[in-house]
Formats: sequence, structure tokens, C-alpha cells
Amino acid sequence: MACGEFDLIDRYFNRMRSTRRDVVVGIGDDCALLSVAEKKWIAVSTDTLVAGTHFLPDISPSDLGYKSLVVNLSDLAAMGADPAWLSLALTLPSVDEGWLAAFSDSLFQQLDYYDMQLIGGDTTRGPLSLTLIIQGLVPSGRALTRDGARIGDWIYVTGTLGDSAAGLAILQNRLQVKDAEDRQYLLARHLRPQPRILQGQALRDLASAAIDISDGIITDLRHILARSDCGARINLDDVPTSAALRRHATPDQALRWALGGGEDYELCFTVPEINRGALDVALGHTGAPFTCIGQIGPRSEGIQFMRHHQPVEYDWHGYDHFKTDDSE
Amino acid sequence: MACGEFDLIDRYFNRMRSTRRDVVVGIGDDCALLSVAEKKWIAVSTDTLVAGTHFLPDISPSDLGYKSLVVNLSDLAAMGADPAWLSLALTLPSVDEGWLAAFSDSLFQQLDYYDMQLIGGDTTRGPLSLTLIIQGLVPSGRALTRDGARIGDWIYVTGTLGDSAAGLAILQNRLQVKDAEDRQYLLARHLRPQPRILQGQALRDLASAAIDISDGIITDLRHILARSDCGARINLDDVPTSAALRRHATPDQALRWALGGGEDYELCFTVPEINRGALDVALGHTGAPFTCIGQIGPRSEGIQFMRHHQPVEYDWHGYDHFKTDDSE
Repeated sequence: MACGEFDLIDRYFNRMRSTRRDVVVGIGDDCALLSVAEKKWIAVSTDTLVAGTHFLPDISPSDLGYKSLVVNLSDLAAMGADPAWLSLALTLPSVDEGWLAAFSDSLFQQLDYYDMQLIGGDTTRGPLSLTLIIQGLVPSGRALTRDGARIGDWIYVTGTLGDSAAGLAILQNRLQVKDAEDRQYLLARHLRPQPRILQGQALRDLASAAIDISDGIITDLRHILARSDCGARINLDDVPTSAALRRHATPDQALRWALGGGEDYELCFTVPEINRGALDVALGHTGAPFTCIGQIGPRSEGIQFMRHHQPVEYDWHGYDHFKTDDSE
Repeated sequence: MACGEFDLIDRYFNRMRSTRRDVVVGIGDDCALLSVAEKKWIAVSTDTLVAGTHFLPDISPSDLGYKSLVVNLSDLAAMGADPAWLSLALTLPSVDEGWLAAFSDSLFQQLDYYDMQLIGGDTTRGPLSLTLIIQGLVPSGRALTRDGARIGDWIYVTGTLGDSAAGLAILQNRLQVKDAEDRQYLLARHLRPQPRILQGQALRDLASAAIDISDGIITDLRHILARSDCGARINLDDVPTSAALRRHATPDQALRWALGGGEDYELCFTVPEINRGALDVALGHTGAPFTCIGQIGPRSEGIQFMRHHQPVEYDWHGYDHFKTDDSE
């Protein structure tokens, strides 16, 4: 579909630095052709990112190239899948070669890191937005889904929560952080989150359900609960936050960001009692911290918040993710 | 990513009228999970369609649902692939339930017809555009690509060319067609083209190269020639046009539309001499007409036009596809 000036764009995306053996035909034909290893399932995820809704309009092209991929990698992580192929549909208001070079450099750096290949896409003129279709591979029968949580399973999260919301608050001048190191850490957690690919793979035979935390732990956990027909108890004392966040936010603000802030791209998963020992070994090897924050209960109880082992009322706020008419 | 009002949209796309056995997990988890049969390759194509660039802004939602899928099906046809899965990223200026119902009805009707399943997607607010990622399956080693044409191979097209450009001209009041039947025929060729799926499959072991005609036969044939490192002779006398087109356009206008008009979604393919007999049988069974329009030559000769077996100069015009700054 590209013509004239837009041919130029294609050149930025036709650099095949990493080539996978399972890509029989890459960019340049009517379709890409992929060969799938036996006994593998394909995991497919689609995300559209629109300037002003999903990222700040003044985001650097390098950060956008990084983050747009991570948002999708995180979906693969939540299935326990190994990243493989990317298709990218890019809509641009104009052709800015500096922007394209920085965006594609950053994107290809990540693709190389994860041994992924760009297999196709499309460039069109219009308001800045991206649609990424990421595909990964997972041994058949071993993918993590949202529907396997059972009463009594323990609820875990990887890493710490709320940092990304604090990083966004810094960018929007809603939070002042003078300490350079903490500021840098919180900004990086918002702009350069680490997808939990290795952790997802380590969880394959241990977790009963998993999801990535894109909209905030409470909102995302609700998806597991809905699909698994369960409720949950959350121990507010155990929700993990970073030292940097605790240094620059009140305890209540830190907790609200941890519960309702979006874009942490950590994993939330449930583990049967019998697998907890194996979990400690398997996840320990990946080097990422992980914390038990509660337990699955009956659906009738909904989500119960606990403090010092007692039920409490807690009005956590949904996170106003670039507030629009459609926000909750 | 959808929230609030946009949840409603998802409901229109969560109707799974056709379910495929190879879809292990469909819409509703972090990723869809697909199981691929042995000895199959996956063919993947991505297309973005933007209102005003790729379709008239006042197109009916039903026609848009139909055509957006066909544009992608046609890419699968050109590889000889069997349609399987669709991911859809839809950007809408607002939530119009009537529009959504008509669009999704039309889309699902086609998905059912081709035994395809919608496996995921995303809905966001913004100027109307769609990105479709279509995936199909082809027996490994038997896909049609653009790079296999050899000197001496014969160049064929399916169906007739130029009708879609005439249909668009009617919609834009550049062509007056009073005869109701011809008018209807030409409009349908523009709004409801038939992807040549069966023909692509029939060509698997017979054609040396194939492409679908989305930008006009000359432009699309050039892609085969570039990838195959060849030139071509085209017999202008043999370029197939419909009786309806010939009744309402001058011979020269009809030929220009046939050569440079876009969106016919017929197939252009090359066939070695030795396969011509088998071709007649195999394509004959699919019920679609097909015509030999020329022969592959050395690259040095470029594209030569012939009339009455003599080379002629012919200044065919590129098709001004919703003319923009980027047009040739």
C-alpha cells in the first residue's frame, strides 16, 4: 500500500538484523511464510497504541519503539510463550527520517535481543498510532491462561507495583522527585519496563492462572477471577512497592498506585499450595523478586482486602489512564 | 485496552459463530492460542485501511466489513493459502451501534463463509481506520511466491480487469452508467470483489510466481519481475475486460483502467510452458475465467507492450488511487 514518499519508511523496516530459521519468507511478498515446530502452539496478541491515549504525544521515538514492543511481549510472558514474530502497522502524520531512524533502531534492538523477526506490516499516513501483532511459541498444552485459578491457590506478583504510575506522574508534573537516582529509576519503570518473559516460561507447569499487569493489579486480577469463577483475598500489607516509590509518595498514595496504577507489566499469577516449593526454586533462578499477596477464595466473596489478617474496607481508586470519556 | 463505552464494541466481535478446531484459546485471554497442523506453513498478511485513503469515507459499514476482509484474503490467495484466523484492530471516532452491527454482521458472514475465526484484536477511539492481520495455512513447500518467474513462462490473469476502477468512477460521478444491470455489476466489482482463494490453491504446483492485483496489473507485475529478475511482454490485445466495461468506456479508457486501475483483486501469475495443459484443467475446475496476456522475457527488456505482435509505445497511466501527496 505504500507509495512514493512512504516507500522510504519501508526501508527503515526492511533491515533484517535478526533472521529466524522458521521464517521461510519475510517482508516483500504477499504474505510472510512461517514454519512452526512440531508440538508447539502459537500465541498471538494484538495491541493498538494511539498518541495521547496510550502514550504521551511527546514521547521520544526511541522510548516508543521500546515500549510498544514491551506491551506486547508482556502478553506473551503472561501465556508462558517464547517471542517469535512481529507484524507492525504504523500510521504517521508525516515522514520524519530522524524520528523513523530512532524508532526503528530502538525496535530492532529489542527484536534482536528477543531473537524476534519483523515479518511484515504496513505504513499509512494519519494521526500517530501503531498496531502490533506479536506471535510467540509455547509447548502445546503448557500455556498459562486466565481460567485455571482454584479456591485455595496463592496469588503472586513479580517485582514491585506502582512505580510506572509514579514515573508517569513525574512526566506530568504531578510528582516531584529531586533525587536523581530515584527519579531515573521511576521514569525507567514507566518508559522502559522489563517484560517478564523468563518468569512466564518458568511458571509454565507451576501456575494455575496468569495475566500481565497492564491496567493495575486489581483490574487485571478481576479478569482471572471472572474467567476462573473465583473471588480473592488481598493482604494490603504484602503488596510489594519499591524503596524509591516509598521514599517519594505517602504510604496511601504508594498503595493506590500499586493497586490501581497501570503499565507495571509485571505478572500476576496463582499457584496451588502443592507447587509453592517448586515455584521458589524455578522463579528464584530467573532473578526476579516475587511476592505472595493473597489467596483465591469463593466467587461469592468477591475481592476482600485484608490488613493485619482482618478484613478492611478500602476504596482503591481506578487509575485514570490518560483520562478520557471512556474511562471508568 | 478497551474500557467503559468501548467494552460494548467488544461484544460485537465476541460472537463466535464459526469456531475452528485449531483455535485452542480464542478472544478473552492475554493471547489467542493456535495449534498448527503438521506439514503446514503459516501465511501472514497485514493491511491497514484508512478512511479517505483506502476507502471512500461514506462507504457503508456492510461494504467496509466485506471489503476489508477481501483485501486481505486476496493476499492469501496469491500465496495459495487456505484462510484460517483474523485479528482486527479497529479505530473508531465514536461508538455507533448501528454502524457496528452492520460492519460486524458483514465481517462475520464472510468469516463463516471461509471457515475463519476472529482470534483477537483491539478497539480504540480515533479517526476511522482498520488494521487486519490475516493468517492462512499452506502445505509446506507449496506456497506461491513472487520470485519464481523464469524467461519463457507465460503470464496469466484471472477474471477481467478494470471493472473496479470503473465502479469507483461511478461512485465518484466520473462515469455515468444508466443501464441498471451494468451499473450494479461494476459497483459490485468495486465494493464486493471476490478473492480468488480457490484459484490460488489450484495454482500451487503449477504457477512459478503469483501476486494479487491490488494496485493495477502493471504495478503488481513489476513486483514479480523485480523479485524474479525478469522483464515481460504484454499483449495489449489480450488484456481481458468485461462486456459491461467495454459498453460504457472508450476502448482506450477501458484499457487504461485494466492496466492501471487498482483493486481488481484478481490474480496475476506465471506458468512454465510444461504446465499449461495441467493449468487448463486445474483452473477450469474452479469456474473462473483466466487469460494469457504475455510472456516473461529478460530483465534488460523491461516491460514491452505489443499490439498485433508488434512492439508499441504505450503510455499507460498509473491509477490515481484517491490521489494524495504520496501518489506517483
